[in-house]
Amino acid sequence: MKFSVQNLIKLGNVDSVYTIFGWVRSKRGNKQITFLAVNDGSCFENIQVVSELEKDLKNINTGSSVRVTGKLKESKGSGQKYELIADEIELIGSANPESYPIQPKAHTLEFLRENSHLRFRTTTFSSVFRIRHAISFAVHKFFNERNFYYLNTPLITTSDAEGAGEMFRVTNLKPGEKNYSNDFFGKETYLTVSGQLEAELGALGLGKVYTFGPTFRAENSNTSRHLAEFWMIEPEISFADLDDVIKLAVEMIKYIINYVLENYKSDLIFLNDRAIKEQLKLKKEARDEFNLLEKLNNIINQDFEIIEYSDAIEILKKSKHNKKGKFKFPVNDWGVDLQSEHEKYLVEKKFKKPVVIINYPKEIKAFYMRMNDDNKTVAAMDILMPGIGEVVGGSQREERLDHLIKRMNGMNISKDELWWYLDTRKFGTVPHGGFGLGLERLVQFITGMNNIRDVIPFARTPKNIEF
Amino acid sequence: MKFSVQNLIKLGNVDSVYTIFGWVRSKRGNKQITFLAVNDGSCFENIQVVSELEKDLKNINTGSSVRVTGKLKESKGSGQKYELIADEIELIGSANPESYPIQPKAHTLEFLRENSHLRFRTTTFSSVFRIRHAISFAVHKFFNERNFYYLNTPLITTSDAEGAGEMFRVTNLKPGEKNYSNDFFGKETYLTVSGQLEAELGALGLGKVYTFGPTFRAENSNTSRHLAEFWMIEPEISFADLDDVIKLAVEMIKYIINYVLENYKSDLIFLNDRAIKEQLKLKKEARDEFNLLEKLNNIINQDFEIIEYSDAIEILKKSKHNKKGKFKFPVNDWGVDLQSEHEKYLVEKKFKKPVVIINYPKEIKAFYMRMNDDNKTVAAMDILMPGIGEVVGGSQREERLDHLIKRMNGMNISKDELWWYLDTRKFGTVPHGGFGLGLERLVQFITGMNNIRDVIPFARTPKNIEF
Repeated sequence: MKFSVQNLIKLGNVDSVYTIFGWVRSKRGNKQITFLAVNDGSCFENIQVVSELEKDLKNINTGSSVRVTGKLKESKGSGQKYELIADEIELIGSANPESYPIQPKAHTLEFLRENSHLRFRTTTFSSVFRIRHAISFAVHKFFNERNFYYLNTPLITTSDAEGAGEMFRVTNLKPGEKNYSNDFFGKETYLTVSGQLEAELGALGLGKVYTFGPTFRAENSNTSRHLAEFWMIEPEISFADLDDVIKLAVEMIKYIINYVLENYKSDLIFLNDRAIKEQLKLKKEARDEFNLLEKLNNIINQDFEIIEYSDAIEILKKSKHNKKGKFKFPVNDWGVDLQSEHEKYLVEKKFKKPVVIINYPKEIKAFYMRMNDDNKTVAAMDILMPGIGEVVGGSQREERLDHLIKRMNGMNISKDELWWYLDTRKFGTVPHGGFGLGLERLVQFITGMNNIRDVIPFARTPKNIEF
Repeated sequence: MKFSVQNLIKLGNVDSVYTIFGWVRSKRGNKQITFLAVNDGSCFENIQVVSELEKDLKNINTGSSVRVTGKLKESKGSGQKYELIADEIELIGSANPESYPIQPKAHTLEFLRENSHLRFRTTTFSSVFRIRHAISFAVHKFFNERNFYYLNTPLITTSDAEGAGEMFRVTNLKPGEKNYSNDFFGKETYLTVSGQLEAELGALGLGKVYTFGPTFRAENSNTSRHLAEFWMIEPEISFADLDDVIKLAVEMIKYIINYVLENYKSDLIFLNDRAIKEQLKLKKEARDEFNLLEKLNNIINQDFEIIEYSDAIEILKKSKHNKKGKFKFPVNDWGVDLQSEHEKYLVEKKFKKPVVIINYPKEIKAFYMRMNDDNKTVAAMDILMPGIGEVVGGSQREERLDHLIKRMNGMNISKDELWWYLDTRKFGTVPHGGFGLGLERLVQFITGMNNIRDVIPFARTPKNIEF
């Protein structure tokens, strides 16, 4: 009977005969007996294959693909519950030890990044990408259970209405041609930086919607935190205010983490051990207070701290860090944007838990955020998490036509281009809001991987578009 | 207590007081009593609001948003189970009957397409987009239950390796500039036409993966079947042959249809009635034999017909249609590609059920498909459905390095560009395969909508990029 390794371990009966397929992760033994660790990607665990069939094993090395038929037995060795006593082993595809890059030794993450096409076969990356899957599935499950409808907003768009960043141009013109009226869409077009404006249109008819798709930034940032192409989740809810938006975001983050903890334990335990080893390479003062699993459990068991931007500024102004000049950007005045060092201080030093900052100065936030009664701040919120900083940015949207027009005029946003956005405020407008969550940031947080390029299958960064 | 209309209908207790929010779909009544049909997008059903509070209702029209508090009662009228006897009605956002485009009368689909930002508030389109959500969720659920991992393959790519169609260029250069070495990625880049090649890399480590994301074609086709931007689902499985790929596709299609039938009955019944009305506008001979619900039930209860390409050609050659010259493209020789009229004949006239055609001539298929032993055909398969034609195209992939190189040489495909693809055949190669399914085609099939622009929230077609 053909079984995946996952099913074999979960459902297999001792003394029954099974056939499995997979790749050899390692091979050891002596003249009499050989042990193969075989993995088929279906789960974290390998199945240990025990063989006395020396003749079949000569060309089987790390990276080879094999078909194994044998009897399932409880393992006497430590490290695994079962083993498969091979009656037959077929080499399907060989892997020359001289040329196969993924040999059973420590590889740097940089090396594996250059071999992104093969890193799915490593313990670390197969765990990372299984967990990326788990997070994505939990997102859909969470929203489906709450009666949200999945909305595919367009990728190719005409405007950078949000002002969120530099955009890639999309064109069908021959290189060097400039006349956009001859272009595919008859005008200049770009890759979207956010599906929010269109998600609002959906929510203002379907009630509750969410997007989950790729977004793009053409920013020349070669850091461990930036990708030119990344995935965003953007829910949008009608008949809702800022409190509802915050509640939704916190509930969603806890739900996802809980789902991964419950369903991908082996992967997380491995990544936890890996993260601890990485921590030990750092100076003592730079190490995290909690290990990965503790950090995840803390998130689901704690209330998030909700504070006003104005209070955050007061805390930062009065902090020892500020007085001793430890901030690269000293905090002196109300109105400044918070830098990562400030966010880090609030989350890791002051509150020691996730922090939701609300009601930012209108000057540092987008045109669509709802003006508060003080006429100085808007109903915005950012969620900051330990180690990773901002993962969520959201707001209640300005649903009042007159206020919206005033803001658009003040910020030179074209009302002609966004006629459809304004229409929703003219006809049956309702209070509504939503947020954006960057998938990769959350995968980093849950897997403990430091570089964002290691949590997306094939990273797109400046001058880097291999695969 | 604040409730969505869905929850009110499902969970509400008669004689309890509830508050609901929504948009007025219609208003009728007399001086003493007013009936409002209120919909919040949460489900197909409206809640009927009954009010004797004349003063509050003056400015409430179709399209207005309202908050209603009242007692839930069983309805004496036909058409709904419950009604809400209003104690209080608040107008949140008005909708001037002179200017609000979505008045309670028949609108053409073209008109609603021009008002894509508001069509979510119509009965037809809210049903279509709820079902689009249901299909998407069923896709994730299906794969998650079967231990597939969701893989996000890159959108920006360097090559049209597959030759699947014209591509959009992605650039960061100033208009008119030509020197790609100065471009963001240092070379010419495009929007992907398929994630398959990268999905193979994932499957050859994780075992079973699927993509579900946007793909692009820069083809100047202004038809009811083509979009420049659409969504594709592409599963890829290791340790599998063509039979496994076909089984997976058939199982998936049946699973999705069954999921929608079980969970979105009201929406489907409405769309079924709508489709019947549309059919009645056609000449008798052009009408479908089955209505929408019958068609869907037929799919899940029938085996799909699996036939060889060679047999399909024989059937077509010998058909009365061919002999009487009814085909625009007569079928005379083995080797020709099948046209929609031929597919239609096979599905609707000959077999009267979905047809899977396998083993196509290598000349009309892509380089990565596995060569059969006859050296003339490749292990490809297309699934054809009644009314809609091809919805799935798949194959077993060529896993043998020497065969693959021969095909790439023969078709002038760059081995240097695809070094990573070849690597997977050098190191631990295994039999594997997969398919692509166009989401919009399936949404069309399940909702009965004729124009593909009506099953995606904001369509991208030549010269058309509004919203």
